[in-house]
Amino acid sequence: MADVAPFSEGNISNFHKSTELKRPTFIFILFCGLQVSLADSLFAGDPGGANTYSESIQGLKFSVNFAWTLLSAFLVFNMQAGFTFLGAGFVQKKNTLNYLAMCFIDFCIVALVFWSIGFALMFGGSELSSGLSAGNQFIGYSGFLLIGNSYDVSTAVLWMFQIMFAATACTIVTGAVAERFKFHVHIIHSVFLCGVLYPIFGHWMWGKGWLEMLPFGVGARDFAGSGVVHGMGGLIAFIAAWMVGPRYGKYNPDGSPNVIHGHNLLYIIIGTLTLIFGWFGFNAGSTLAVTELRVSIIAVNTILSAAAGSVTLLYLSLCITKKSDIIMACNGALAGCVAITASGAYVPHWAAIIIGVIAGLITRISLYSIETKLKVDDPVGAISVHGANGLWGLLSVGIFSDGSYGGVRGLITGSGWQLFAQFIACVSLVAWCFSVGFLFFFIMKRFLGLRVPVNIERSGIDVYEHGTSCYPGI
Amino acid sequence: MADVAPFSEGNISNFHKSTELKRPTFIFILFCGLQVSLADSLFAGDPGGANTYSESIQGLKFSVNFAWTLLSAFLVFNMQAGFTFLGAGFVQKKNTLNYLAMCFIDFCIVALVFWSIGFALMFGGSELSSGLSAGNQFIGYSGFLLIGNSYDVSTAVLWMFQIMFAATACTIVTGAVAERFKFHVHIIHSVFLCGVLYPIFGHWMWGKGWLEMLPFGVGARDFAGSGVVHGMGGLIAFIAAWMVGPRYGKYNPDGSPNVIHGHNLLYIIIGTLTLIFGWFGFNAGSTLAVTELRVSIIAVNTILSAAAGSVTLLYLSLCITKKSDIIMACNGALAGCVAITASGAYVPHWAAIIIGVIAGLITRISLYSIETKLKVDDPVGAISVHGANGLWGLLSVGIFSDGSYGGVRGLITGSGWQLFAQFIACVSLVAWCFSVGFLFFFIMKRFLGLRVPVNIERSGIDVYEHGTSCYPGI
Amino acid sequence: MADVAPFSEGNISNFHKSTELKRPTFIFILFCGLQVSLADSLFAGDPGGANTYSESIQGLKFSVNFAWTLLSAFLVFNMQAGFTFLGAGFVQKKNTLNYLAMCFIDFCIVALVFWSIGFALMFGGSELSSGLSAGNQFIGYSGFLLIGNSYDVSTAVLWMFQIMFAATACTIVTGAVAERFKFHVHIIHSVFLCGVLYPIFGHWMWGKGWLEMLPFGVGARDFAGSGVVHGMGGLIAFIAAWMVGPRYGKYNPDGSPNVIHGHNLLYIIIGTLTLIFGWFGFNAGSTLAVTELRVSIIAVNTILSAAAGSVTLLYLSLCITKKSDIIMACNGALAGCVAITASGAYVPHWAAIIIGVIAGLITRISLYSIETKLKVDDPVGAISVHGANGLWGLLSVGIFSDGSYGGVRGLITGSGWQLFAQFIACVSLVAWCFSVGFLFFFIMKRFLGLRVPVNIERSGIDVYEHGTSCYPGI
Repeated sequence: MADVAPFSEGNISNFHKSTELKRPTFIFILFCGLQVSLADSLFAGDPGGANTYSESIQGLKFSVNFAWTLLSAFLVFNMQAGFTFLGAGFVQKKNTLNYLAMCFIDFCIVALVFWSIGFALMFGGSELSSGLSAGNQFIGYSGFLLIGNSYDVSTAVLWMFQIMFAATACTIVTGAVAERFKFHVHIIHSVFLCGVLYPIFGHWMWGKGWLEMLPFGVGARDFAGSGVVHGMGGLIAFIAAWMVGPRYGKYNPDGSPNVIHGHNLLYIIIGTLTLIFGWFGFNAGSTLAVTELRVSIIAVNTILSAAAGSVTLLYLSLCITKKSDIIMACNGALAGCVAITASGAYVPHWAAIIIGVIAGLITRISLYSIETKLKVDDPVGAISVHGANGLWGLLSVGIFSDGSYGGVRGLITGSGWQLFAQFIACVSLVAWCFSVGFLFFFIMKRFLGLRVPVNIERSGIDVYEHGTSCYPGI
Repeated sequence: MADVAPFSEGNISNFHKSTELKRPTFIFILFCGLQVSLADSLFAGDPGGANTYSESIQGLKFSVNFAWTLLSAFLVFNMQAGFTFLGAGFVQKKNTLNYLAMCFIDFCIVALVFWSIGFALMFGGSELSSGLSAGNQFIGYSGFLLIGNSYDVSTAVLWMFQIMFAATACTIVTGAVAERFKFHVHIIHSVFLCGVLYPIFGHWMWGKGWLEMLPFGVGARDFAGSGVVHGMGGLIAFIAAWMVGPRYGKYNPDGSPNVIHGHNLLYIIIGTLTLIFGWFGFNAGSTLAVTELRVSIIAVNTILSAAAGSVTLLYLSLCITKKSDIIMACNGALAGCVAITASGAYVPHWAAIIIGVIAGLITRISLYSIETKLKVDDPVGAISVHGANGLWGLLSVGIFSDGSYGGVRGLITGSGWQLFAQFIACVSLVAWCFSVGFLFFFIMKRFLGLRVPVNIERSGIDVYEHGTSCYPGI
Repeated sequence: MADVAPFSEGNISNFHKSTELKRPTFIFILFCGLQVSLADSLFAGDPGGANTYSESIQGLKFSVNFAWTLLSAFLVFNMQAGFTFLGAGFVQKKNTLNYLAMCFIDFCIVALVFWSIGFALMFGGSELSSGLSAGNQFIGYSGFLLIGNSYDVSTAVLWMFQIMFAATACTIVTGAVAERFKFHVHIIHSVFLCGVLYPIFGHWMWGKGWLEMLPFGVGARDFAGSGVVHGMGGLIAFIAAWMVGPRYGKYNPDGSPNVIHGHNLLYIIIGTLTLIFGWFGFNAGSTLAVTELRVSIIAVNTILSAAAGSVTLLYLSLCITKKSDIIMACNGALAGCVAITASGAYVPHWAAIIIGVIAGLITRISLYSIETKLKVDDPVGAISVHGANGLWGLLSVGIFSDGSYGGVRGLITGSGWQLFAQFIACVSLVAWCFSVGFLFFFIMKRFLGLRVPVNIERSGIDVYEHGTSCYPGI
């Protein structure tokens, strides 16, 4: 403990003298006071659950769907451990703690920001549960702080599931900027991403926004967030990784990339397995109801797509390099999961396999292009796995949906309108991320700088930012 | 395998010659025989479930609540992996296996002891399910060995959930005494803790005991065990760590503490995430029923409190040391979880944030005081995270409960009686732990000794106690 | 990333020139096309779930059982992470990545093979859900590719649960052949095991096959797969480990075994905990319905048996070597889990303890015999833990079942017929595995060879098979 809790008298007195501390503390207390009074004056909804539940079919339906959605949310939370393992394996030993810190703290930041702002922007006006009535097709504006009418058991279930998605989007970016990003800029970025960028686009797709209401097919559909969560995470990761620049030593003067070894491939494989474990909740839980029995088809599609993506990339690596590249197989499995996230509910099993195979191929091409052609340095492959396949997932809904669920009919049923709606969703996602995301990182770079100093980068960020290495005392 | 299964002929013949072995083996067989005959003579309850279930609203209500409680129990079990990771990161490489061994085996011991004795002492007389009718306000005495009427599907659900809690209380102690405690004394302590100490206090609070029945407010309430589980674990950890003394080299002759580095901070962060994952089951599962729709509010409160605690300590560490101390952030998250464990069901969301912030501050002050003022050496910070915040959690019920669930009304509704009941619970917890716990460790120290020899401590306990290091062959 | 995604121009052009690639790719596309047309022509079942669900008791019963079975399946999936950790701890550092690769990819292979062939052979004719009508007592033949009538929500639930079991059987073998097996032979073996060996025996036991229909007792019963999954995995592991031969340096010229150290015991303990966590889903989920309230008894029995096995082996190791061998305790816990897998649903709690104790003893004797007498080298102890205890689990059903569930009555109720049925199941399992399994590995050895070259084995398989070590850049 001692090394991580360095209580010397000097530090403590420094604490009491500290002037920087006083202002934000004061603001925070004021903020809390505001909440208290707001909450007291607006008390409503059904926070006890007794009005929502009754000893009837309807009451039990609430219960079983609560259980399903909450347990799925818990599984999605565990994906944080998956991302932590995965990225930790890909980065160098000297920067591991910094990556871990970014992964861990962004969840905490996201929870507070999504509670106070993000959730209201995203689901206000969706009428999905109590207290979410105010909003238009472009932005929501009710449900702030989960007080008043939104202090309700049904709203809490929705929030619980959605916070996990917001955190996932945020964590995806972490991997792409690892080993050189400033820690406090990452925190500011987390606030912006889950407070503004993510919820507004999410509102368009899931909060009765204009994309969901498009007059083509049944409107754009992104079942569990290929686009909303993974596409956005991957595209923002692209912008961030591009603007922060490649790691020191990644590219030679002639522009050719070097290999920078990760430090523990076991973590990568465990991370992949943990992510797939969580993905079952991510995808099958996105019905928000197990009374939608389609959940079982969704779960099976998730496995099949992951397996197809994995085997495809393993086979490719064997053909090309004569080695069974197991890390590519992991990337393939995750790519399959990302791609099936939008379409898992709408497509038959055989289509899940094809979607997974294509996801694998896209990942391979994207990894190659981004590293060698665009010269953007992405230590964990987040842009290819999540960004490229997020877009592919959105499109796949318009191709393979067989009309057996939710009335979504893709090309294979002979109709192209759904694909057109999905295409509009892709374009708007790219436009949104590249315009607002670029602006944000441009301002950050101009005023705060995105990178740690180069000498710090060379010696390792861990001690500089966090005061210790990840493996002290060895 | 070979190194851990050293089958030489000598060993095996030694086994057959062994005289120490015969006596306990004989007693064990006798014990089993006794059970068999008891079981055969007392067969009752509803072990098949067919009498409890019916094709009706009531039958389905049983089913969905069984599913919820069992799955929550599984999640809580997984906290064992969380504690294992967490503590393994905090201890030195040379003592890692010993810590792991204590973590693993105490669960097994607790399972057997809680099955035979603890559960009956804790829930006898609670009438919560079949076979739990005999008991008074101070102790229970039915449900031993889960035979007779307590061989029943409903009783098994309750047992399944409660064993996880007993194991958690026991494992909390492990961290505080790591790196110097005798292995077999730890085993004896596990038997005592979950066979006597824990179930009796648990009975007072959860088994229709005198604390639950206090005539102030609705009686003392500890929703998911801030006090019963974490408070007790932390307070016993304090006594154990104090009586075993600090690790060799922890304190200088002038009394100033030294930093003893852990060996893998990744384990700490993964451990924290795994613990929070399990905590969802711990807190939301403690309704024992998802037909209590309040579960969603509880889950949300758990996240918010953890996030608030984490961000508070990260911000403090940044102010004081100019470094982002991510391990303090982990401690803060766990502290927030501990504190909200008692009150999560009763308080609104904004209060969860305040409870988490205060939990963070308490942890910081407690870590400082225990290390520097009291000079008790706690390698993982268990006393501060679980003990201090266990008590804070108990009190927070009396402050922030808004009356929306279970009729619990705290100070913010204008009534002080609930706080008074909570205060009595705190005092009785401290008195119980310090008197009986002290007596136990005093006797242990007197007759068996608590510490390994100092030369063993310096060279590492792993080989001495377990015959191998944690990382052999490297 | 760079090291695992080596995109040089040379590699890519090599890819386009590659001729080996074209043929299988073509076949794969043809195969996909075939599926598409099949699916379109045979569309049936209830893939949307709307016909299966209704707003009634019956509809909710479907929902809650779907939730239970799917969430259990997710937990069983997480056992893959458990096996990965466990085995990785037992193998040497230089072969870790190879073990991880085998663990990871076999799940992907199994998913595709079980989807296309295995599931149909196993459950065709079982009538358990839509599209599974064709089959006889020896083999099933409907449900291929989950198309036609088997594109159905109920069938998808069953598939989802069963794929996890098939993958478990396959992964068990991985550990026993670690550190010397050829990677592509492992892949072929995975295809054969889950495409032929496993589903056919599984059909006999679970798909209305001849073992399930035996006219003794209620027919042979293997509740959650002690025999079907673990027994088969362990017995095939025995054959594979025997035919591939011991690792280089395992045995001295005089036949005495050497100790080959694993490299990380923390992984073993975390792996054990993760496996037990998954085992709750494995055992309690095997009712496929939480409306069978017996699930709670099953979960409790699982813990008790694991704890009893663990404590037994810890105690034995303490008696024999004076050291607390925590790895033996882990083996004991897993052995207890394996043994209770067949009988957990049918036996009372006290019997679970006895079954666990005996499982521990069997493991100890088996480990000794296999290593020292039979001279078969099993790095992780899979043969003893899964094989020997799989058979013991099958038999234990016939001994301890108390008639409280499913009408299964063992010796303790005074009837020997159930034990006779269980004995037939054991014999047929051994005969099936040893005949067909032996034939398979014999052919493999004859035509492809099972082992990597000895110089590769000495220097480590990781770089040879996968192009990198598990811990690069350190």
